[in-house]
Amino acid sequence: MAAATDRAARAMERCEALNAFSEEPARLTRRYGTPALRQAMNATEGWLRSAGMTTRRDALGNLIGRYEGATPGAPALLLGSHLDSVRDAGKFDGPLGVLTALAAVEGLHERRERLPVAVEVIAFADEEGVRFRTAFLGSSAFVGSLEASKLEAVDDDEVSLREAIAAFGGDPDAVARGEGGLGPAVGWVEVHLEQGPRLEGLGLPVGVVSAIVGMNKVAVAFEGEAGHAGTVAMDRRRDALAAAAEFVLAAEAAARATAGLVATVGQIAAEPGASNVIPGLVRLSLDLRHPADGVRAAARVDLEEAARAIGARRGVGVAWERLTDTPATPCDPALTDRLAAAIAESDSPVERLPSGAGHDAVALAPRMPVAMIFVRCAGGVSHNPAESVAEADIAVAIDVLDRLLGATEAPRAVRR
Amino acid sequence: MAAATDRAARAMERCEALNAFSEEPARLTRRYGTPALRQAMNATEGWLRSAGMTTRRDALGNLIGRYEGATPGAPALLLGSHLDSVRDAGKFDGPLGVLTALAAVEGLHERRERLPVAVEVIAFADEEGVRFRTAFLGSSAFVGSLEASKLEAVDDDEVSLREAIAAFGGDPDAVARGEGGLGPAVGWVEVHLEQGPRLEGLGLPVGVVSAIVGMNKVAVAFEGEAGHAGTVAMDRRRDALAAAAEFVLAAEAAARATAGLVATVGQIAAEPGASNVIPGLVRLSLDLRHPADGVRAAARVDLEEAARAIGARRGVGVAWERLTDTPATPCDPALTDRLAAAIAESDSPVERLPSGAGHDAVALAPRMPVAMIFVRCAGGVSHNPAESVAEADIAVAIDVLDRLLGATEAPRAVRR
Repeated sequence: MAAATDRAARAMERCEALNAFSEEPARLTRRYGTPALRQAMNATEGWLRSAGMTTRRDALGNLIGRYEGATPGAPALLLGSHLDSVRDAGKFDGPLGVLTALAAVEGLHERRERLPVAVEVIAFADEEGVRFRTAFLGSSAFVGSLEASKLEAVDDDEVSLREAIAAFGGDPDAVARGEGGLGPAVGWVEVHLEQGPRLEGLGLPVGVVSAIVGMNKVAVAFEGEAGHAGTVAMDRRRDALAAAAEFVLAAEAAARATAGLVATVGQIAAEPGASNVIPGLVRLSLDLRHPADGVRAAARVDLEEAARAIGARRGVGVAWERLTDTPATPCDPALTDRLAAAIAESDSPVERLPSGAGHDAVALAPRMPVAMIFVRCAGGVSHNPAESVAEADIAVAIDVLDRLLGATEAPRAVRR
Repeated sequence: MAAATDRAARAMERCEALNAFSEEPARLTRRYGTPALRQAMNATEGWLRSAGMTTRRDALGNLIGRYEGATPGAPALLLGSHLDSVRDAGKFDGPLGVLTALAAVEGLHERRERLPVAVEVIAFADEEGVRFRTAFLGSSAFVGSLEASKLEAVDDDEVSLREAIAAFGGDPDAVARGEGGLGPAVGWVEVHLEQGPRLEGLGLPVGVVSAIVGMNKVAVAFEGEAGHAGTVAMDRRRDALAAAAEFVLAAEAAARATAGLVATVGQIAAEPGASNVIPGLVRLSLDLRHPADGVRAAARVDLEEAARAIGARRGVGVAWERLTDTPATPCDPALTDRLAAAIAESDSPVERLPSGAGHDAVALAPRMPVAMIFVRCAGGVSHNPAESVAEADIAVAIDVLDRLLGATEAPRAVRR
C-alpha cells in the first residue's frame, strides 16, 4: 500500500481542499446545516467511496462510510471526527480525524484487505455547537441520545434546530426518536490535533489520550453597591468589581496550586458600566476542568467558599450558579493500550495525556469503548487560522491507525 | 420676610414640581434641549419673575434672573445651579441650587431690599452632559469658553449640538463666538447636595466646599494571549483578565493608602469574551481623583508603573492612555470664608470638605471667585431617584444664603 507519508500528503491536500468550503470568503467558518458544510460532506463522501466504502447519512446528516469486514454485516470499528468548525477556524480541528481515518481505510482498500471487523469512517455534522450552542450534536444524534427538547433550540436567525435538520436533508422526528446512524460497533478511535502545547514541548509527534477532562461552567455574580466615583470614600465602598477581581485571582491561584486543574474566567461584565460609577454588579463565568472528578469537585467547593468569603469581607453579595457539571470521560483502557502499543511499534515514545477540551468521545463513551490519538500542534494553537500540524506527524498518526487495524481481532460487538 | 423654613417648604414643593418635567413617564430624565427641560426652564422663569427679577436666556439657553442692586447695572453676585439631569435622576441634583437661590432673592424681594450688588440666579441648561457627553456645557457657554469645535458633537440620534442649540431657541454662532450670558460679576455661589455621606456621618446639615477635586480618566488595556480554557496549562497562560484583576486591586489599595484619593475601575471588557476562552485582551477605565493635583499625579504615575510591572511579570502588554487630566478647582478663600462665617452665624459647626464630583464652578472659576455649600444628602445617594434631602437642611442652606447676602459689601466687579 501507499506509504503513510504519501497518504499523509494526500490527507494534508484534502485538509486544504475542505478549508475552501466556508460560509465566509476570507476565513473558515463552517457551521451545522450550512451550504459550506454540505459541500465539505459531499467532497468527503466522494473520497470515502473512492476508498471502497459505501456511504450513508443519518437522520441528523452525519456522514458514515463503511468498509465492510471479512464477514458482511460485521460489527464496526468506528474512526473519524467532525467536519463543522468554529468561527474563524483552523483547518485541522475535525478534518484531521476524518481524513486520517480515510487514509487508513485507503490502505486496506489498496491491499483489498478485509478485517475481522468492518471499519466505519464517521464525519459528524456538528461537534463545535456554534450555531445552536449545543456541543456534540452530531455524535449525540448518531448514538440516539440527543434530547428531543434540543430540537427547539434556535440559532441567531431564530431558525430552530428542527428546521435546520430538515433543511439539511435530515429527519428531525427520527432524531427525536433516537434513531441515529449507529450500528453494531466495537469502539471509537479519533485522531485529533492536541490543541495544547504538551506534545510539542516533549518533542513527540503523537500521544494517547488518557481521559477527557470533566468540567463545570459556573455563573458567578457579585452584587455590591453602585456609587459615584468621586464622592464615595474608599472605606465606604462595596465595589462589586474589586470583589470579582479578588475572585479571578483566587481561581487562578487555586488552579496553579493543583496539578492538572485549569480555571478560567473568560467573561466579565460590570454594571452600570460607566467610568465614573463604582460597579454595583459584576457577572463572570468560571470554567473549571480536571481529569479527576473528585479533584474538580473539591476545587469547585473551595472556590465557592472563596467567593463567599470575599463577598462577606467586602459586604458584597455572591450568587453562585452551577450551569454544567460534566463528568470526566476516561478512555477505554484496553483500546487505549492497543493505541499505545501501536505508537510504540511506530518507534515513538508513548505519552499519555488528558484532553482538556471536550470531544465526540464524551457522547459516544456511554455506548462503546472510546480512545483518542492526539497529534502535535504548533504552539498549542487551535480554534484559529494559525492552527498548524506537520505532515510528518500526520504520517505517524496514519501509521498508528494502520497498526491498530492490522492488530484488530475478531470482535465482540459492543452496543451498550 | 418669610422664615427660611417657609421658603424651604416652597423650595421643596418646587423640586417636586420640576420633577414632573421628564422625557420619560416613569422616571426623571431631563437632558439639554428637550421639551422637558424647556418646561422646567419656563416654570422656573415664572418663579424668578414673581420674585421681582427680570429674566433672559443666553445663546445656549441658560436662564438668568436678575434682581437689580441699589445701583442699576451693578455687578452681580451669581447664585444658582443647573436644571438638566442624568438619566433616572433624583430631584435635587441641580434644582436644589436654583431654588435655594430663588428663595434667597424672594427674601430680598419681600423686604424690597436692594443690595450693593445685583443678584443673578442662573439655571444652567446642561451640566451633566448626558446628551452630548460634554460636562459643564451650560456654564462654559455662559462664560464664553465653550470650544467652537464642540458644536459639532452629536447625540445618539446624530443631532449635532449646533442643531440642538438652534432648536432650543439659542444661537449656536453666538456660542461659537463666546457670547454667553455673563455680565459683570463678583462671584459664584452654588448650593448643591453633597452626593456623598460625609455630612450625614458628621450629623451636619451643610458644609462648605474647599475645592473640587482634580481628576484623570485613563484607558488601560492589557493584551495577553487568548487560548482554550481546557488545553492551555496554567503556567503557559498570558491571561489578560488575571493581569487586569491584579490592577483593579492595586488601584483600590493605592487609594485606600492615600488620604483623600479615590480610584475607580467602572468599566471592564474582556475579549473574545467566551466562557471557554482565556481572555486575550482586557480594556478597563480608571477614574482617579484628589483635591491636590500633586498627590493625584503621583498616584497616577505609581499606578501606571504598577500596571506595567504586572504586565511584565505576566508577559502581558500594557497600554496606558490618559484621556483627561482636569486640575483641581480650589474654591475662592475669601468667598468661602464668608460662607463659613454665615454657616457659623446660623449656629452650625463649619465643616470644610472637598467635592469629589465636578460642578459648574470648574467652568466659572477662571472668570470669578467661586464657592459652594453642600447640603447633607441621605446615605450619600445621588444620580438616583432615591436622592433625598431634608427640608430642615434646605432651610439651613437658605438661611446661610440670607446671611451671605445680608453681609454683602459694595463690590469690586471681577471679570477676569
